[in-house]
Amino acid sequence: MPAEHQKSLCIGLDLGGTKLAGALVAADGAIFQSTRAPSRPEDGPDHIVDTIAAVVDELGEKAGGRSVLGIGIGVAGQVDPETGTVRNAPNLHLENFPLKARVEERTRMPVAVLNDVQAVTFGEWTHGAGRGVDDLVCIFVGTGVGGGVVADGHLVRGSSGSAGEVGHMTIDLHGPVCSCGNTGCVEAYAGGWAIAQRARAAVAKDPTGGAALLALVSGKHADIVAATVSRAADDGDPLALAIIQETGEALGAGAASLINGFNPAVIVLGGGVIEGMPRLFGLVQAELRRRALRAALEHSRLVLPALGGQAGTIGAATWILRELGHTGEL
Amino acid sequence: MPAEHQKSLCIGLDLGGTKLAGALVAADGAIFQSTRAPSRPEDGPDHIVDTIAAVVDELGEKAGGRSVLGIGIGVAGQVDPETGTVRNAPNLHLENFPLKARVEERTRMPVAVLNDVQAVTFGEWTHGAGRGVDDLVCIFVGTGVGGGVVADGHLVRGSSGSAGEVGHMTIDLHGPVCSCGNTGCVEAYAGGWAIAQRARAAVAKDPTGGAALLALVSGKHADIVAATVSRAADDGDPLALAIIQETGEALGAGAASLINGFNPAVIVLGGGVIEGMPRLFGLVQAELRRRALRAALEHSRLVLPALGGQAGTIGAATWILRELGHTGEL
Repeated sequence: MPAEHQKSLCIGLDLGGTKLAGALVAADGAIFQSTRAPSRPEDGPDHIVDTIAAVVDELGEKAGGRSVLGIGIGVAGQVDPETGTVRNAPNLHLENFPLKARVEERTRMPVAVLNDVQAVTFGEWTHGAGRGVDDLVCIFVGTGVGGGVVADGHLVRGSSGSAGEVGHMTIDLHGPVCSCGNTGCVEAYAGGWAIAQRARAAVAKDPTGGAALLALVSGKHADIVAATVSRAADDGDPLALAIIQETGEALGAGAASLINGFNPAVIVLGGGVIEGMPRLFGLVQAELRRRALRAALEHSRLVLPALGGQAGTIGAATWILRELGHTGEL
Repeated sequence: MPAEHQKSLCIGLDLGGTKLAGALVAADGAIFQSTRAPSRPEDGPDHIVDTIAAVVDELGEKAGGRSVLGIGIGVAGQVDPETGTVRNAPNLHLENFPLKARVEERTRMPVAVLNDVQAVTFGEWTHGAGRGVDDLVCIFVGTGVGGGVVADGHLVRGSSGSAGEVGHMTIDLHGPVCSCGNTGCVEAYAGGWAIAQRARAAVAKDPTGGAALLALVSGKHADIVAATVSRAADDGDPLALAIIQETGEALGAGAASLINGFNPAVIVLGGGVIEGMPRLFGLVQAELRRRALRAALEHSRLVLPALGGQAGTIGAATWILRELGHTGEL
């Protein structure tokens, strides 16, 4: 039925603790229309379903007569791969919530639910920086460090939907405590919070060495964040540069573990911290040359993401499209 | 054609630097006949092909009229997943050797070639400790530390065939130098060579504390190996117990990284070092509770391998069977 499907679209939703982003996406990954709404988790799960339904209605009206085949939802939390139930999503105040069933009931359309970072990974794989390869690892460095894995041409969701927690790989047995309770995780060095924490500790220990950082926050030690470190590094501040160097080493060690474990063709390295500290990219590359096995490294390339902020909606829409059995262009 | 296939078998070969093990394997994973021959890599690649052909002939004669459908070969080295060429196998003195093509030409049977640890992983998944799950990680601790990964119902071979090098994940940024040149790999703590090295260093530093270890090797410091540590620990020697504790922590950190990254349902922990130091199993379990994310850990179980020394031949035979398109029982 190519004639009918040529004009078909899917809806991709990216559901986070602050906002719900939605897009009408074509089979080639192009965004036809997009919108957003506040997610307001504090108003309860029924309100989240209402918001989703409203965004779906709005996008449906914007479809201009094209048929909408289904809805893919990337959720900031752990999703049961079998049932589409959100097991646990602290930022959304959801626990064991049957999101797929509830949205299907409400919209009378086919729905697929997956983790939001897995959706981003799927988007980058199918329409972004990882197009055309069968093995891909994504590492996204923001306040936390998350990621996703495509292995042998399949998005890895894991036995309970939580695969891809690459930020919580141990890279330093005796390293600092992480947000997850473990010690020495990648995130405990490279997450935005960890960079800020390390900078504040260094400044407290050595206010003279930390003078440039302190000056940028008008002496308010507690205001030092990752962006402060980035700005000081741009001015050539040695302390800030050392903190970024350490961050790059930690990220590089984590990426090397992933290369040795998965042997991906492409490693996508993105997120707000990478955007804010572009020199991290080169530091990670240098660390890979030091740490990864040659047999795996020489068949892989480190790249930046290609889809930007819409990777999640594109990935979620493409996911439901695949679930519905469309593997090629519509 | 179940009538014809009911009596069919495949040949599984496990090609290592010392010996070639071969088995006639039924579709249910049962071994019908087995044999072995020295591999003699020093006699060159043509001799390896001769030895394979001789073992295939021998097993063919033992098949007792059952038809042999194909040959799977697990090789101690890096194998190109597309072509079945052995890229690099130092212990077999092979480099860019077209093993699949050569053995097909010689035996006139369909041949599939994969890495030997990937074959063991495939065997444990299809007929061993990982039956029935879609996500599995194997960790084998011997002189070196190797492994394999099954994700979303697929054996992960990687973009250039080297996936599963779980022994070379960094777990200690500033740890000891590994056989691969990196620092702080799992193997640099838990490989048999690393356990021996750490024990010798500890004894050299503190001969009094190391008295029990020294006594077991009649004072010959250089004779201390991993088995010496195991025996001393059985006698309650504190130094040996501390070395094993440290080994368990390193293995546990590596296993936790794999659980967080892949979210497997089953982690198989085996190999000579685990057999020789059974207390490592419990130490790894304890470390997993400390380090792995609860969301992933509560859906996973750590188990011992089920197939023993024949996992490689069973896995290789089952691999060719699947390649030939037989997914169920013959």
